[in-house]
Amino acid sequence: MTEETVVTLAALKERVEAIFRKAGLNDTQATAISRVIIAGERDGCKSHGIYRIEGALRTVKAGKVKPDATPELLIEEGSAIVKVNAGGGFANAAFELGIAELARRAAKLGLAAMVINDCTHFSALWPEVEALTERGLAGIVMCPSYATVAPTGGNKPLLGTNPFAFGWPRQGGSPYVFDFATSVAARGEIELHRRAGKQLPEGWAIDADGKPTTDPEAALAGAMLPFGGHKGSAIATMVELLAGIMIGDLTSPEVLDYLGTTTLAPFHGELILAFSPEAFAKGRPGDPFARAEVLFEAIVGQGARLPSQRRFAARRTSESEGVTLSAAEIQQLERLLDKGLDAVS
Amino acid sequence: MTEETVVTLAALKERVEAIFRKAGLNDTQATAISRVIIAGERDGCKSHGIYRIEGALRTVKAGKVKPDATPELLIEEGSAIVKVNAGGGFANAAFELGIAELARRAAKLGLAAMVINDCTHFSALWPEVEALTERGLAGIVMCPSYATVAPTGGNKPLLGTNPFAFGWPRQGGSPYVFDFATSVAARGEIELHRRAGKQLPEGWAIDADGKPTTDPEAALAGAMLPFGGHKGSAIATMVELLAGIMIGDLTSPEVLDYLGTTTLAPFHGELILAFSPEAFAKGRPGDPFARAEVLFEAIVGQGARLPSQRRFAARRTSESEGVTLSAAEIQQLERLLDKGLDAVS
Repeated sequence: MTEETVVTLAALKERVEAIFRKAGLNDTQATAISRVIIAGERDGCKSHGIYRIEGALRTVKAGKVKPDATPELLIEEGSAIVKVNAGGGFANAAFELGIAELARRAAKLGLAAMVINDCTHFSALWPEVEALTERGLAGIVMCPSYATVAPTGGNKPLLGTNPFAFGWPRQGGSPYVFDFATSVAARGEIELHRRAGKQLPEGWAIDADGKPTTDPEAALAGAMLPFGGHKGSAIATMVELLAGIMIGDLTSPEVLDYLGTTTLAPFHGELILAFSPEAFAKGRPGDPFARAEVLFEAIVGQGARLPSQRRFAARRTSESEGVTLSAAEIQQLERLLDKGLDAVS
Repeated sequence: MTEETVVTLAALKERVEAIFRKAGLNDTQATAISRVIIAGERDGCKSHGIYRIEGALRTVKAGKVKPDATPELLIEEGSAIVKVNAGGGFANAAFELGIAELARRAAKLGLAAMVINDCTHFSALWPEVEALTERGLAGIVMCPSYATVAPTGGNKPLLGTNPFAFGWPRQGGSPYVFDFATSVAARGEIELHRRAGKQLPEGWAIDADGKPTTDPEAALAGAMLPFGGHKGSAIATMVELLAGIMIGDLTSPEVLDYLGTTTLAPFHGELILAFSPEAFAKGRPGDPFARAEVLFEAIVGQGARLPSQRRFAARRTSESEGVTLSAAEIQQLERLLDKGLDAVS
């Protein structure tokens, strides 16, 4: 049996921040990025936890993200759009800079948007959705990624796995949150099948000739498929249009051209929409938060699940007991802290 | 062979308006509802064309929609939300009342929303999306319907078929538009299978015990399924939250409780989000409309289709040549005009 170590979230955060500082990230970048990595680990979302550190460092080393960027808030009086230029740094610091102003405008106008430009975004979107729900706002968050998904009816990678996330605040409990890729599967899952020598489920991917395949190698050389056929393909296209083109940032094919690889974190923009349920419901019968609970109860009452429940359960445990890391994970953290950017290729 | 009649769009519109006037609709209601019915017929969308008139009249006769309602614009200075109370009438007249103010606010603020409350909504959402794209705006439109869809993992109808539509303006051409039900299939398609004595494709529905079924009768007694598994289920839930609860209007289960049937047009609200691509792209490199064309060309260039193309092709034909109605359709129009509400049960 491999040895395991239990670490508190605070201790882990300190360790992760130290790694990023050693790799040249300034305070703003290091603390913001560490927060989302710890959130992933805390929520039992290993694919968005400390596993991601190496990819972030590789992206720094490749010169595709500025480790010492200072994001800049570009606001225009009387606009519903809050713009943050990430200055080529990670999206997380930019989001943290803009969230208060976004919340202020959403409360005032009923509806507001935050645009993050010139950022590297590699974390899940739920930490950002939850930052909105914590402020009593509902939110939609989306961004492109790299061209790895063929539009339905097509045969070449063009769209990204383009995540789409939504949150609704719940009083005295975890929010209603979903955050999913608009592809059937995440690219990482195909890679995991390849490593394990396993075939893919039907419907995940096509090969380089556009034919359906269950072979992970062929899928990686071909393209992934959108979820839900032409409907998912349409949503992924909407994400390219709104959170790439409309905000004046790169689309998934442009990101891939720019990076030349899918092994570095993608450089593009992000769109965050914030809704004030109070402002929308004003003057109408019923309290929107209480009414939402009726809907949630009806969903759970028939045996269906609300999304993110596994994450919230893991969170409760991690917050009281810390998280358990394997010997290999601890070793990796030590190596990254010791060698900095020399630890990655 | 059945006899067919070719009618110009203008002549058909006159005939449809006369039917609605005869049924007691005031001018505002009759012209607005006729416009979307003609648009459906024009675009070869028979399921949203003159076929819908009877259902609208049944809803009037049942007292579940006010035929002489006058929608009211309720605006608050400095808000990004334009509210229109449909006064218990059809949504179409309310939409037409609010669209100019919505466009004005979206241009000014970058982003704005229209909320339609207390309306009966039974048309497709694409006419509304296209009203936005005609004004150079991108848009998202959504509304609940009736509880006919089980959430993924559940076994009872709770969510609606909740349409979700999106549009992006294209210069000198038809816009990019999609508009789909968040259920695998529309309820009407299940009904058509039943009438034709055909089995349903797998994955469309469950029976009253929550078991997968391909029997249309069992499906109608059970529940439909969301598209794309838990992801589509999540989007349908988001529509209930944003376009039902948040705007202080009925959710799909509440609509069904209120109407007691799915044979009348649903009474609820609607949410329209309008984005100004100019405002979002301001100060960023590239023209968003030109860049979008590059994406569309890449989609089409690999043999995939853009949504709504069949509609736009039908529209071009109908606008120059008129539409062809069957003898039965002509007869039905005559009957409805002659007997008014007495023609429906």
